[in-house]
Amino acid sequence: VTGEDSQALADGLRSGDRSALARALTLVESTRDDDRLLASDLLARLGPPPGDTVRLGVSGPPGVGKSTFIEALGLHLIGRGHRLAVLAVDPSSRLSGGSVLGDKTRMEGLARNRNAFVRPSPTGSALGGIARRTREAILLVEAAGHDIIVVETVGVGQSETEVAQVCDLFLLLLAPAAGDDLQGIKRGIVELADLVIVNKADGAFEAAARRAAADQRSALRMMRPRAGGWQVPVVLCSALHGSGIDEVWAEVERFVDHQRGCEAFAERRRRQSAAWLWAEVEQELLAALRADPGTRARAGEVGARMARGEITPPATAMELVRGFLGRPDREHGATAADSRRSGGQKR
Amino acid sequence: VTGEDSQALADGLRSGDRSALARALTLVESTRDDDRLLASDLLARLGPPPGDTVRLGVSGPPGVGKSTFIEALGLHLIGRGHRLAVLAVDPSSRLSGGSVLGDKTRMEGLARNRNAFVRPSPTGSALGGIARRTREAILLVEAAGHDIIVVETVGVGQSETEVAQVCDLFLLLLAPAAGDDLQGIKRGIVELADLVIVNKADGAFEAAARRAAADQRSALRMMRPRAGGWQVPVVLCSALHGSGIDEVWAEVERFVDHQRGCEAFAERRRRQSAAWLWAEVEQELLAALRADPGTRARAGEVGARMARGEITPPATAMELVRGFLGRPDREHGATAADSRRSGGQKR
Repeated sequence: VTGEDSQALADGLRSGDRSALARALTLVESTRDDDRLLASDLLARLGPPPGDTVRLGVSGPPGVGKSTFIEALGLHLIGRGHRLAVLAVDPSSRLSGGSVLGDKTRMEGLARNRNAFVRPSPTGSALGGIARRTREAILLVEAAGHDIIVVETVGVGQSETEVAQVCDLFLLLLAPAAGDDLQGIKRGIVELADLVIVNKADGAFEAAARRAAADQRSALRMMRPRAGGWQVPVVLCSALHGSGIDEVWAEVERFVDHQRGCEAFAERRRRQSAAWLWAEVEQELLAALRADPGTRARAGEVGARMARGEITPPATAMELVRGFLGRPDREHGATAADSRRSGGQKR
Repeated sequence: VTGEDSQALADGLRSGDRSALARALTLVESTRDDDRLLASDLLARLGPPPGDTVRLGVSGPPGVGKSTFIEALGLHLIGRGHRLAVLAVDPSSRLSGGSVLGDKTRMEGLARNRNAFVRPSPTGSALGGIARRTREAILLVEAAGHDIIVVETVGVGQSETEVAQVCDLFLLLLAPAAGDDLQGIKRGIVELADLVIVNKADGAFEAAARRAAADQRSALRMMRPRAGGWQVPVVLCSALHGSGIDEVWAEVERFVDHQRGCEAFAERRRRQSAAWLWAEVEQELLAALRADPGTRARAGEVGARMARGEITPPATAMELVRGFLGRPDREHGATAADSRRSGGQKR
């Protein structure tokens, strides 16, 4: 892919060419340096993102029925004229490298529908890389005309915070079981939710689902409301039977209207852009430092002293950064020893 | 605390003064700039860490009995002449700010023992800050003469990876229940474990504990062994009744001997130092960029363009970093547009 090709790719995905979109997604998932440059070139060619999209984070413990739920919700939305994209995120198996979520066949109805685009989780995606890849993927699928983006994460920890950082609304799916602990849901995760859904509210589970919903409602009343005073609702549904899906969507729309009404929607996206910016700045700076020949030389030398325990990693870091920035003993990075020499103030 | 005071603090904690140790730990937990400088000064004064300490990460789902286990193991070790330090890590409730783990009274026997030092989790510790604070805290308690360091984390996700990064051995505590999913344990977490312990193997739970241990053993046989061919053992214990604690410690010692024998022990610490170094380099670089007046000025201008969607966060980041490093159009950070101009190669 060269510059000319990246223009063709941008044109292709904007015109709805699914294979162009797939290639573009592969590009942003790559960690190769040349791919990173092309990806950023491609993103620059897409222009401002459409303002009327909704980015939904969907999480919940294993076995809660996330795929079935997303399939049911997705088909419902397509029936109402929307175009859906599903981006899966699964950092759970970094060491083994495998990923069950990579299995596209989980959402067969959506995978076959021309108004939906399902992208499995790239294997070996590192935590920390999730947000970056997902932010870029969102811009791509939006440019390709998808107006509802579902970012799905398998959820008992690590990735939810990152997913919440790229979404307009974080939706937590729970099973009709008692107690967050038993479901492996951490308190911090529930605090991220803008909407809680108790799935499997059907048949023998219906009564348990009602009890679980009531429990969640009283637990949520103890937490402080979300931005703009939004009180997190708890909705029952059965993705398997398709019941409650319209109520779920009604709550999503009510949330979006509410957040748009109080500017919280735009504010959230602004904060997300800023977080993205600083994450990229970090990456760029580190890359520049690592590529710097002088720093490489110094790294060998101070690294050996560090290995012998003569100098701590923070002190080593300070030496490397000062050397790289070419300001060995000025302003930033004055050590405590400096402040001691100059007679640091008592506290 | 001035430079002179930090020398006194270093002397105090080395001589076994518990209040000096407590003040030093408070210093490394602080995120204030002046405290950070003093903390790094203090660390520099401690000299090389003793080589014969063991750093144990302990994790497991809520309710598995981590505190009871650590108390039983700790008292056992103190009886054998060791000096123990327990550092608790709990990032679970970032938004609410509260922390159950902050409750020192959980480990009453240890908290009262002069050969133990129990440090609750600082409230409001951000994920990402865990590793930094814990690494520094480990050096402090080691300098104070504690030879066995237990880093405890409440465990269903986020913090385990960070804790595994600062420990010699990661010990996973499980309940006598079937299925990792039900316990909220992610596959990725089991993959971090060097030693698996099924707790509560007593009374009515004993049979279930034996089944759970057998399940874990066969699951572990499917995974690749850890460094140096270490096959992760599964041990039964009852922390409440004190049974199996000696077997647990025997396995820890066997692991340490094994890892020392194949150089994996030192190699793991070396890798951890390197990771620490790069994390600090990142922090230092970002701090320098944020403090740079020229960058602040440019940030306002390009930030406004970014807010209007005219420029993506990655492109904005590139502009800021290039400006900061004073190399507007050279070497590092050549964009895809540049490579296009110079006729980038087809792939």
